[in-house]
Amino acid sequence: MAEKSSEHEHPQNTFGWAARDTSGVLSPFDFSRRENNVDDVTIKIQYCGVCHSDLHSVKNEWGITVYPIVPGHEIAGVVTKVGNNVKKFKVGDRVGVGVMVGSCEKCENCKQDLENYCRKMILTYNAIDHDGTRTFGGYSDLVVVKEHYVLHIPDNLPLDASAPLLCAGITVYSPMKYYGMTEPGKHLGVVGLGGLGHVAVKLGKAFGLKVTVISTSPSKEKEAIDKLGADSFLISTNMDQMMKASYTLDYIIDTVSAVHSLAPLISLLKLNGKLVTVGLPNKPLELPIFPLILGRKMVGGSDIGGIKETQEMLEFCAKHNITAEIELIKMDYINTAMERLSKSDVHYRFVIDIANSFSSAS
Amino acid sequence: MAEKSSEHEHPQNTFGWAARDTSGVLSPFDFSRRENNVDDVTIKIQYCGVCHSDLHSVKNEWGITVYPIVPGHEIAGVVTKVGNNVKKFKVGDRVGVGVMVGSCEKCENCKQDLENYCRKMILTYNAIDHDGTRTFGGYSDLVVVKEHYVLHIPDNLPLDASAPLLCAGITVYSPMKYYGMTEPGKHLGVVGLGGLGHVAVKLGKAFGLKVTVISTSPSKEKEAIDKLGADSFLISTNMDQMMKASYTLDYIIDTVSAVHSLAPLISLLKLNGKLVTVGLPNKPLELPIFPLILGRKMVGGSDIGGIKETQEMLEFCAKHNITAEIELIKMDYINTAMERLSKSDVHYRFVIDIANSFSSAS
Repeated sequence: MAEKSSEHEHPQNTFGWAARDTSGVLSPFDFSRRENNVDDVTIKIQYCGVCHSDLHSVKNEWGITVYPIVPGHEIAGVVTKVGNNVKKFKVGDRVGVGVMVGSCEKCENCKQDLENYCRKMILTYNAIDHDGTRTFGGYSDLVVVKEHYVLHIPDNLPLDASAPLLCAGITVYSPMKYYGMTEPGKHLGVVGLGGLGHVAVKLGKAFGLKVTVISTSPSKEKEAIDKLGADSFLISTNMDQMMKASYTLDYIIDTVSAVHSLAPLISLLKLNGKLVTVGLPNKPLELPIFPLILGRKMVGGSDIGGIKETQEMLEFCAKHNITAEIELIKMDYINTAMERLSKSDVHYRFVIDIANSFSSAS
Repeated sequence: MAEKSSEHEHPQNTFGWAARDTSGVLSPFDFSRRENNVDDVTIKIQYCGVCHSDLHSVKNEWGITVYPIVPGHEIAGVVTKVGNNVKKFKVGDRVGVGVMVGSCEKCENCKQDLENYCRKMILTYNAIDHDGTRTFGGYSDLVVVKEHYVLHIPDNLPLDASAPLLCAGITVYSPMKYYGMTEPGKHLGVVGLGGLGHVAVKLGKAFGLKVTVISTSPSKEKEAIDKLGADSFLISTNMDQMMKASYTLDYIIDTVSAVHSLAPLISLLKLNGKLVTVGLPNKPLELPIFPLILGRKMVGGSDIGGIKETQEMLEFCAKHNITAEIELIKMDYINTAMERLSKSDVHYRFVIDIANSFSSAS
């Protein structure tokens, strides 16, 4: 399908912030959303999380960015319109949108509620929608999404701190479930204490696991234990600590997206231990084979989660009062926030207060 | 425990072939076995398979060999003595011994029938036994083994072609069971068609799988399909074939112990695909992370199997008439056999006809 001309082809005027080039600098951007169709939900966006993918994308670090780009796929807001066929939502509902807004809905993966692995999955931004127009993300005041890809945010969860659950949350929840890393009493290691890692710690505790954070930053220890509830903390560069902890972990969630060494992490695993990587290093990692074989260990991957599982994750978080730890910012702080994010200087997720950023402009 | 002086400390005279130095050349060797204790079984060895580990060991390629070394851990023979406490065996029974002859029998792994992962597991050769003496393997006429580590070889399986099941067989059977690679109708890839790989093909067919062999040797195609029962054959260096086969396999057993690329193999796997490596490359392999994440794939390891599972494997093979394809050789051919093995010039396992090699000498 050919890509149509961009910003003003649709009837619903929308205001957001976009990056125009590889500088990644974001600035105000007028565009538009499609009319709310029979299967659609229109959402007034209140909050949008700032994911590390947003940073990669605005700078075209993966080489697939089309400018202008409006990032944002941790969207929380309130329903303002519903199409005639919409059954799950009504005006006023508190809802979320994550990493995808479409898929083929016919393939084997879609039929198994694994839309996230559909080859025609449509990303929330920087993708081509079914109608041939480009998708723009949640750094904007309004979004129109097919009902199927919209999530209910449970009443007891605040919208701002729940927004990051839509990407960071499901990205760590799904592998924990799929790889069977939820057996109470087992010992989970969480590598990297950023947006994903800090939610993994909370989920691990809610599953009844013992949780150890593995990080390069000694400064994060106190907060990991006191605030996030981790049981212990390992500094990955401290060989003595790492040696003593060998063969102590049942599972590891590795959230680090920089190129790093797997060998010291694998040696932390017990027999039958499982390491799941959810970060996306742009080069292959070195995999030591002897410890994998001698300890019957495995290394697996996982990519976000399906819509059904994302809703399940939200209910689980609601039950256990889990939300992200956030720094709430205004839209005009985004370029500073991106710079801080590039230095991992955030505890633990920036969330843009969309509604209060745009009130004067709308 | 200190190592005692070597060859003649025990009462049961034994004759075998040993390597004396890193040349790996094997030659006749007089030594001895311990008296048959109350828990022991003495076995007259009839056949012994030639495993690639034997070659690594006689040349000290893993840096842990103590000379003289008598290799051999695919042992098949007949019971000649049983201790008073022995319950499972009687004189005349057809039995086998694999990679291990002891373990601590107390640790968590031993208690779960995973003696193969016991940290005090005693290898059949080149290890220190409980009594402080060295273990010598199956390139010899007689062996004394604690009952627990002896296997029954089912009546319908010939001893010669069953010997390789004790190492090659269990090494591929155990991961297929543990990682759930046995669902009828699923598609298994077997990488490398040597001693391990050719048994994996037969096991795969017995489990009801579709089996594709992936090999660098086009010459192996006809035999893989006509003789071993594989359904198809991929030449791993043929990029066109490999591309067309992407996303077609559910499981892969990778038996290659040379350093090789995992990326083309991982791309053959479907969503949720599993690759298990049982070869032991002496360097780390490159693990591409994107395909692992985007296809929720995993790479795991596995090391032989426990005693209980080894017996189960033998019963499974008996039920399905599975044995190894062997070249039966005399002991004095072993140095030539080792040289041919180093060039993968064997279909598919050398087995030494121990009884008929030593008849004149004993």
